[in-house]
Amino acid sequence: MNGADALCDTLLEGGIDTCFANPGTSEMHFVAALDRKPQMRCVLALFEGVATGAADGYARMLERPAATLLHLGPGLANGLANLHNARRARTPLVNIVGDHSSQHLQYDAPLTCDVASLAAPMSHWVRRINDADDVPVAAAESVERSLADGGAVATLIFPADAAWNACSAPPVIPNAPPALPQVSQRRIALATNALRTHGDRVVLLLGAQALKPEARVLAARICDATGARMLAQQSNARLERGAGRVPVLRIPYPVEQARAMLDRASHILLLDATAPVGFFSYPGKPGSGVPEHCAVHAISSSGEDAYQALQAMADDLGIDPNRPVIYQALARPGLPTGALSADAIVQTVATLMPEQAIICDEAISSGRRLLEMTAGAPPHDMLFLNGGAIGIGLPLATGAAIACPDRAVICLQADGSAMYTLQALWTQARENLHVITIIFSNRSYALLHQELAKVGAGRAGQNASRLLDIVEPSLDWCKLAQGMGVEAVAVDTVRALADCIQVALSRSTPFLIEARI
Amino acid sequence: MNGADALCDTLLEGGIDTCFANPGTSEMHFVAALDRKPQMRCVLALFEGVATGAADGYARMLERPAATLLHLGPGLANGLANLHNARRARTPLVNIVGDHSSQHLQYDAPLTCDVASLAAPMSHWVRRINDADDVPVAAAESVERSLADGGAVATLIFPADAAWNACSAPPVIPNAPPALPQVSQRRIALATNALRTHGDRVVLLLGAQALKPEARVLAARICDATGARMLAQQSNARLERGAGRVPVLRIPYPVEQARAMLDRASHILLLDATAPVGFFSYPGKPGSGVPEHCAVHAISSSGEDAYQALQAMADDLGIDPNRPVIYQALARPGLPTGALSADAIVQTVATLMPEQAIICDEAISSGRRLLEMTAGAPPHDMLFLNGGAIGIGLPLATGAAIACPDRAVICLQADGSAMYTLQALWTQARENLHVITIIFSNRSYALLHQELAKVGAGRAGQNASRLLDIVEPSLDWCKLAQGMGVEAVAVDTVRALADCIQVALSRSTPFLIEARI
Repeated sequence: MNGADALCDTLLEGGIDTCFANPGTSEMHFVAALDRKPQMRCVLALFEGVATGAADGYARMLERPAATLLHLGPGLANGLANLHNARRARTPLVNIVGDHSSQHLQYDAPLTCDVASLAAPMSHWVRRINDADDVPVAAAESVERSLADGGAVATLIFPADAAWNACSAPPVIPNAPPALPQVSQRRIALATNALRTHGDRVVLLLGAQALKPEARVLAARICDATGARMLAQQSNARLERGAGRVPVLRIPYPVEQARAMLDRASHILLLDATAPVGFFSYPGKPGSGVPEHCAVHAISSSGEDAYQALQAMADDLGIDPNRPVIYQALARPGLPTGALSADAIVQTVATLMPEQAIICDEAISSGRRLLEMTAGAPPHDMLFLNGGAIGIGLPLATGAAIACPDRAVICLQADGSAMYTLQALWTQARENLHVITIIFSNRSYALLHQELAKVGAGRAGQNASRLLDIVEPSLDWCKLAQGMGVEAVAVDTVRALADCIQVALSRSTPFLIEARI
Repeated sequence: MNGADALCDTLLEGGIDTCFANPGTSEMHFVAALDRKPQMRCVLALFEGVATGAADGYARMLERPAATLLHLGPGLANGLANLHNARRARTPLVNIVGDHSSQHLQYDAPLTCDVASLAAPMSHWVRRINDADDVPVAAAESVERSLADGGAVATLIFPADAAWNACSAPPVIPNAPPALPQVSQRRIALATNALRTHGDRVVLLLGAQALKPEARVLAARICDATGARMLAQQSNARLERGAGRVPVLRIPYPVEQARAMLDRASHILLLDATAPVGFFSYPGKPGSGVPEHCAVHAISSSGEDAYQALQAMADDLGIDPNRPVIYQALARPGLPTGALSADAIVQTVATLMPEQAIICDEAISSGRRLLEMTAGAPPHDMLFLNGGAIGIGLPLATGAAIACPDRAVICLQADGSAMYTLQALWTQARENLHVITIIFSNRSYALLHQELAKVGAGRAGQNASRLLDIVEPSLDWCKLAQGMGVEAVAVDTVRALADCIQVALSRSTPFLIEARI
């Protein structure tokens, strides 16, 4: 058995059976090992940003990591933007990066670069494997680290000689994640004191594990009993929502709107959440979304047991464990009338999306009414561009579809962002995934036109327009999709869009709809 | 005047009038400043790897830098692979990366990451601008650094507040590059002693400036007079070659072939070159391409005056400055007969390429006979994938065409690599560039099949085949190109290929030929 075999075996022992890959020569021994491990599903991406984004989408749905396989520093570099999103989402992910054999680094061959330096900003943990005998321990640690602290990007640098040399070290079975640390009684008391004394001026700010449906039930009971409000943090990886679940409002991204929403609050209690901040900064505007009069207390942090914290708060407040809560009723908006617009697309999707749909939202400025419109849709998951690095939508949908083959994935995708990782469409075709991509074809970085005005820089002139508008030529998304083997149709009316969505839902293959708005 | 204006002005003063950009919110003040500077040509790329690769191609041709404009850490990340190639090519490049305003970093907003750490491995120089008043000095330094040491990737991190705040510092005009340092007499003597005593066992290994046509004339005289051989190093950025120029063989990439070529040599004299190394390492094979009996001496290094070194060597050897040298004769191979194959494509291009064509070579394994076939073509430039990070061809061609609007650019492009940065085709259409892209459509990472065998891992099984073959579905390059506004035709015969090349040459617009082999 060589080091590559040992790595495969350890990943499989750790429950990782899916690898999103774009290998090169330095990874060939690992590729050969994969041939000996038919249990490992290999998914080829034609660009590394697809591999990392798909691994993110996969793990957001299954709550266990996939592996990636990337080629040296440049291959890692291509995957970094979506690793950034995965890191911000605290997605468990074992990111395997091949490197030259240790003895070859001295020659400074053309592809040599500092892989660890590149990996560090987008990883929670980085380790370079020393040699073949180091593989079982290092690989087990990478699996364990990926599941620690609420989810982590664990990057394992795998030199070619550690892959090809014989491994005589004993196998190591990765430990299952330990039980989540409980939140201290001191912090529970801090929270419940605030709730008792300030009641309706308290906000429970929920993120990650505290946003799971069962945690939201507890939060809703606490709010109902104390007059507090529950809100979701701004940037979320995944939200399970829709009819039959406890609804939750999200704090809006614009910092003024966030502050307005929190204006009445005296205390913000963070439960696996971060306080609102401006996505960007603007001259003369505040960077924090927290009003100055508002105290912020971290009650549970990433990797702690947020559910237990909410349970302990409810117990401490003496709340009846059977206290009724209000669940979201089924309420579809109905098909829109009038011309096709961004809002009309969102409304159409909200009206037609099936039960257990997975919505991947990279609609950017076009999706501003998405949460409101889909609030009463059948139960569904929504995955977000939480880290701000555009080009996540198509890969995320790809990974989610591989994770959940029995569910329909609907990717709401801005056109400018779609271009970053359009290669994902090929993987959708290769793997025959049930992904319906709706391109909001507005032929511009529409958000940036708004931002140009917002930073006080006025309207776009000639140079700026050439940088913000995707025209001359316009993109033909049907051809782009068809070129990668994905069926595609362009629509410019609500009726045609609705018909296409229904056709696409009736199949199990990838389908792209270019919605021209 | 704000900091963004000051940056524009300083770049323009430094001779930088082209900016390959994909901006975001944090760059909006710079975008607004570009509106006030119509002299700055802004070229939009729909993915950052296109921007960095195009800036590389531009500067390889004009020997002066372009600027890039990238959006925060993730935007930089997307551009890193081609920055790696530019760094390896020692291309002068001013890489401008926006960042959050300095006061906003404390909030750890979603897009925040360690930009400097990401930039370092792929940059020769990194500087973060402190504030608006720091802009003129920092920008001038970035221009100067980009032109230092034989060409450098100079990364300038530009916080949003440094862009929007008023700049009251005086303008700074970047210094022109100083005269190149001369090579010491000691090293010249070392070289000429070797040439005198070992004559035909000496290799002049030429790279970068020592490969320029006028330098090759000197090297040819030295070789003719002493019996030495001249060779080009393995990885080159640009080679001016063809009829009327001094021909030069390139050391092959496979390390065994490199060693065989150098087997007779006792001394290798490096002139702005690096000694041959294995592109990758293989079990039990040497990493260096230099035979053990061979002494390697660095005569001139990057940023030193290689031409002067060769001149001094010739003078020291008493070589007649008018000693005749043999120039390459015009000799086209003629159109091939038989089926379309990788070699047949190369031969067809060699037969039809016009004078002063710029050939961008990312044909990978399909281009193995390119140098041989085109040796006697009319004078042309050839730009190479020198750093090994695939996805350079289409962007490089884009930048070269912007640099040289009167010349035809022919991009010889492997299909797997083309997918990495296919968004470049849109920029070619937008800018109406005379780029002819020939896709070697073999529907696989063909090189990797060879490499799988070469590392001793045998033939591809099921998992490996799924990672190495780009089939099920095949890519339709015509649709991909047309989707981005580029005219395209697929061919599967030599005749059709030749006809298409001639049609494409007769126009001035981008054209893609999918050559199915």
